[in-house]
Amino acid sequence: MKISEKMNAAIAAGKTFFSFEFFPPRTDEGVENLFDRMENMVAYGPTFCDITWGAGGSTADLTLEIAKRMQNQACTETMMHLTCTNMPKEKLDEAMFVIKSHGLQNILALRGDPPKGQETFTAVKGGFSCALDLIKYIREKHGDYFGIGIAGYPEAHPDVISEDPEQMEKAYWSDIEYLKKKVDAGGEFIVTQLFYDVDKFIKFVADCKKVGITVPIVPGIMPLMTYGGFKRMTGFCKTYVPQEILDTLEPIKDNEQAVKNYGIHLGTEMCKKLLAAGTPGLHMYTLNLDGASVSILKNLGLISSHSLPRSLPWRPSANIYRFPKEGVRPIFWANRRHSYLSRTAHWETFPAGRWASCLRGKGGAMAPPDEALMSRPLSSDKRREKALAAWGSTVSSMEDVKAVFAKFLKGEIKQLPWSDLDKLQSESADILSPLLDVNNKGFLTINSQPRVNGLPSTDTKVGWGPEGGFVYQKSYMEFFCPPDALDALLAAVKSQPSIAYQVVNAAGDYKSNIEEDAVIAATWGVFPGKEIVQPTIVDKASFMVWKDEAFDLWTTAWAGLYEQGSSSYQLLTEIRDTHYLVSLLDNNYIDSDLFKVVCVAVKKGGCTIM
Amino acid sequence: MKISEKMNAAIAAGKTFFSFEFFPPRTDEGVENLFDRMENMVAYGPTFCDITWGAGGSTADLTLEIAKRMQNQACTETMMHLTCTNMPKEKLDEAMFVIKSHGLQNILALRGDPPKGQETFTAVKGGFSCALDLIKYIREKHGDYFGIGIAGYPEAHPDVISEDPEQMEKAYWSDIEYLKKKVDAGGEFIVTQLFYDVDKFIKFVADCKKVGITVPIVPGIMPLMTYGGFKRMTGFCKTYVPQEILDTLEPIKDNEQAVKNYGIHLGTEMCKKLLAAGTPGLHMYTLNLDGASVSILKNLGLISSHSLPRSLPWRPSANIYRFPKEGVRPIFWANRRHSYLSRTAHWETFPAGRWASCLRGKGGAMAPPDEALMSRPLSSDKRREKALAAWGSTVSSMEDVKAVFAKFLKGEIKQLPWSDLDKLQSESADILSPLLDVNNKGFLTINSQPRVNGLPSTDTKVGWGPEGGFVYQKSYMEFFCPPDALDALLAAVKSQPSIAYQVVNAAGDYKSNIEEDAVIAATWGVFPGKEIVQPTIVDKASFMVWKDEAFDLWTTAWAGLYEQGSSSYQLLTEIRDTHYLVSLLDNNYIDSDLFKVVCVAVKKGGCTIM
Repeated sequence: MKISEKMNAAIAAGKTFFSFEFFPPRTDEGVENLFDRMENMVAYGPTFCDITWGAGGSTADLTLEIAKRMQNQACTETMMHLTCTNMPKEKLDEAMFVIKSHGLQNILALRGDPPKGQETFTAVKGGFSCALDLIKYIREKHGDYFGIGIAGYPEAHPDVISEDPEQMEKAYWSDIEYLKKKVDAGGEFIVTQLFYDVDKFIKFVADCKKVGITVPIVPGIMPLMTYGGFKRMTGFCKTYVPQEILDTLEPIKDNEQAVKNYGIHLGTEMCKKLLAAGTPGLHMYTLNLDGASVSILKNLGLISSHSLPRSLPWRPSANIYRFPKEGVRPIFWANRRHSYLSRTAHWETFPAGRWASCLRGKGGAMAPPDEALMSRPLSSDKRREKALAAWGSTVSSMEDVKAVFAKFLKGEIKQLPWSDLDKLQSESADILSPLLDVNNKGFLTINSQPRVNGLPSTDTKVGWGPEGGFVYQKSYMEFFCPPDALDALLAAVKSQPSIAYQVVNAAGDYKSNIEEDAVIAATWGVFPGKEIVQPTIVDKASFMVWKDEAFDLWTTAWAGLYEQGSSSYQLLTEIRDTHYLVSLLDNNYIDSDLFKVVCVAVKKGGCTIM
Repeated sequence: MKISEKMNAAIAAGKTFFSFEFFPPRTDEGVENLFDRMENMVAYGPTFCDITWGAGGSTADLTLEIAKRMQNQACTETMMHLTCTNMPKEKLDEAMFVIKSHGLQNILALRGDPPKGQETFTAVKGGFSCALDLIKYIREKHGDYFGIGIAGYPEAHPDVISEDPEQMEKAYWSDIEYLKKKVDAGGEFIVTQLFYDVDKFIKFVADCKKVGITVPIVPGIMPLMTYGGFKRMTGFCKTYVPQEILDTLEPIKDNEQAVKNYGIHLGTEMCKKLLAAGTPGLHMYTLNLDGASVSILKNLGLISSHSLPRSLPWRPSANIYRFPKEGVRPIFWANRRHSYLSRTAHWETFPAGRWASCLRGKGGAMAPPDEALMSRPLSSDKRREKALAAWGSTVSSMEDVKAVFAKFLKGEIKQLPWSDLDKLQSESADILSPLLDVNNKGFLTINSQPRVNGLPSTDTKVGWGPEGGFVYQKSYMEFFCPPDALDALLAAVKSQPSIAYQVVNAAGDYKSNIEEDAVIAATWGVFPGKEIVQPTIVDKASFMVWKDEAFDLWTTAWAGLYEQGSSSYQLLTEIRDTHYLVSLLDNNYIDSDLFKVVCVAVKKGGCTIM
């Protein structure tokens, strides 16, 4: 949705908002790392994230790619910067077409820096020479569709900064008049250039009001991280730095850690002053690093270390074609969100209240996952190294395999081929002991949730949705089962008629007690003033799509780490070829104990430890 | 759906099915009475009901009208008889078009009696001379759409019955061969002519098997009700009557009650024998009366006096365009089902899992109710008389009005203008005491349900849906509130933030604490192997449509009983003009007590008794 709407809603609710700015990394590795970092930063609940524009050529393409992926995979409301630099109208059209068709709705409209080798900005042929014309063009071509952010300069644009106070005063006001024109042309909120003198920002906001600017003005905060970087940036932007800051920095400038600490302290104090002066939100120039920005926001109490309230059990997509319509997903991809999102990116409608009524999940309706959009352990030497460190440089026995699953459950390693979330969901902690027990017996668990019978929606572990509601879950457990243990397991499972089971091997042999077209609620919630919300389901068609992915991951994400033919490679492919993928959902969410049933089956010795 | 599918499902499940046959009454009054009776008979859960064909002219039109109304208002799977008598193809086309477009799917294809004044059957110009041709024509024109029932004659068709045993035997077998042809042409099940010798039926079924007839053969049971009727019918149909029956009847033939009792006994014994011989179901010729047929089925244990398991909290429509897709309705019409069905008959799609996603209820989307389809207290002198008896020949004070509501709550009268169900829902018994209390204070209740927090779906009072599930309800209460009591009531209601209230008067002044577009679940259920089912909701748009109906009923269904200008008329119209319609839904289904809140408000003396 439009960022301005989110901002205005936060302002109306008296809540301070914040946002994170990123730039396109130079390497593929860097892009992957950025998305790893973003996964956690998005979890803090920024109002939006933005990505700067790479002026022309491949960097521009990279910006588009990253923007699409931020909106659709990281699932944060994304604002893409767009500049006039080297951008004739056709290229602007193309960029806008791309993001619009991928469900983005926000642009930061900028003039941009002069093209390389030019001192002053001149328009490219068929392009624009100023942000105002770009804003007008966006509105002309796309009406009210795009939310448009614009840049504000509390110390006037660097181009017009002058030593002469009178000329400077004139330049400052003419800059504000220009800002007013940008607002009138369609700018819906203002993000400012970095600054280190809070009073200058406060005066700037007051002066903007004087000329009739009423849209939100959000200060751009660039935390001081290194002395060199700080000098470079303030020099380039001609930023005024109060003497006090320079004096404090001087004696510690060679002590990296001291500078960093001071940067966090300084940023925190600046922001406190800003918020006290009525600033509605903060825009953090992260420089693609989470440390300083996150520390400042934590100091301000805007983010906390425990998890944010969730609107749904899964992170909703930010794509305007999915959000807020999409309301239901199969449970199978609970730990592989990126894969699910890419498999369904081509859908024209998304299931709202029910899965079945949308006739989804009929196998063919899901596309193969777009590997390019996912974090892949084998995509680079560095990632391969990381994966080997986590899962072992060799995997010589079933014990080694079990150990990897157990380590993941205990949080000792952060990765598992069947999880792109880089951590176990907190609710799994409640069932950690039975999960470890069954893993220990060779039942390799990859997805689970405990039974919940009407806990408050504010419950810190399993809660989601608005306050005052109640959430429910059927217990769920999904694992790879050793072939010689299957019969005993199924006997135990069948003794508990409330359990819906599905069992399949890589070859596709399928056993189940659910009806062919059954769609079974796995998670739901009841909220004041709402229809029943049912975000997670279990069905056969989706399971059969998922099982291919689940079996493939043994090789594509794990065995592939090792030389083909090595004993590690052979062991992992053998597991893929022989094990069964078992999905168990207990329909009795009132008083049954799925995990106990499985544990008992396991303990009865039905399965021989391989 | 097709009756044959329902029959085959019952046979597969080992359940005996039954059905009721009706004929078009001669007067409007008779039609209304038939539908009153049908309302209760449908609640016993017949597999279908059928209506005989009025041979040509206005009786044929009446059959069509009744068939439509059976399917769409009484909500029973309906089979319309269709005969060749006086029916050229165009008329057959028209009849089939009418029922198909009204969501009927079943036809009993018959030749019919010879046209009046003719001895033997001759085809009308452009029509058919036998059921076989009619069956072929139905299939030719509509493919597999219609479920086709056909008639079987255990004693051969009356036309061919002969005194000569040899000729009779020949006629019997040629009749069975003809039946086989009807099956081959598309007859999906057989309903037989009435008989009183069960052995003849059993032999007939065996003989049908011999020629390869495998479709269900359902015996037509005509309970002996009066001696005269019995003689006439068996004479007309040339039915063989065992001597034993004649001997039993002879001494009691002038004792109406004794004949009736014997008829029920005889029917029960015949059916026992039929079922013991493996008959899958029973087709009852009711002659539009419930007594004998219902008694026989009760004796057989096929229906019981307590209510049947409900698939949903409301009776689902039998119309193929609604069933089984339709899954959600506003609570407001809970006691005015006929009105709701007629208001929404033109919808092209029906909300399945959610109300909001279908964008229903936007006021204009509902048509005015079709009064012709509803039981109307003022539609005839006899109904007017009945209503006056129930609601008083004069209504001279608010006390009189309150007394009517209280009598309805206590079951002392069966009618209320705001209810077409002719009885209070059984679950209201749990909240009878608070309902009586508030009625006694002048809060005139017209709709309510108690809070239910996860009772088994098999609960006899509030249960619905398949076994093994759990049902939930938010407490609900709807009433007309005296104007001087509104403020105190609202103050009490607002003190309980979980209560969603809507208040409106006839002039349309509206107060509420719910959001404009909110849709709130009122009833839902969780079942093994299913998505969450949510059949009843509360919203503003539907409420605003309902309120016009609710206020209008004061005059159209009640005040209109009295002379315009009379004090009764004036009192009732004054209530309409001054009272508020109040709808209260308590979002807290866990431990709140809506009725207590209202009772306390009432007792606090906030309202002066008028």
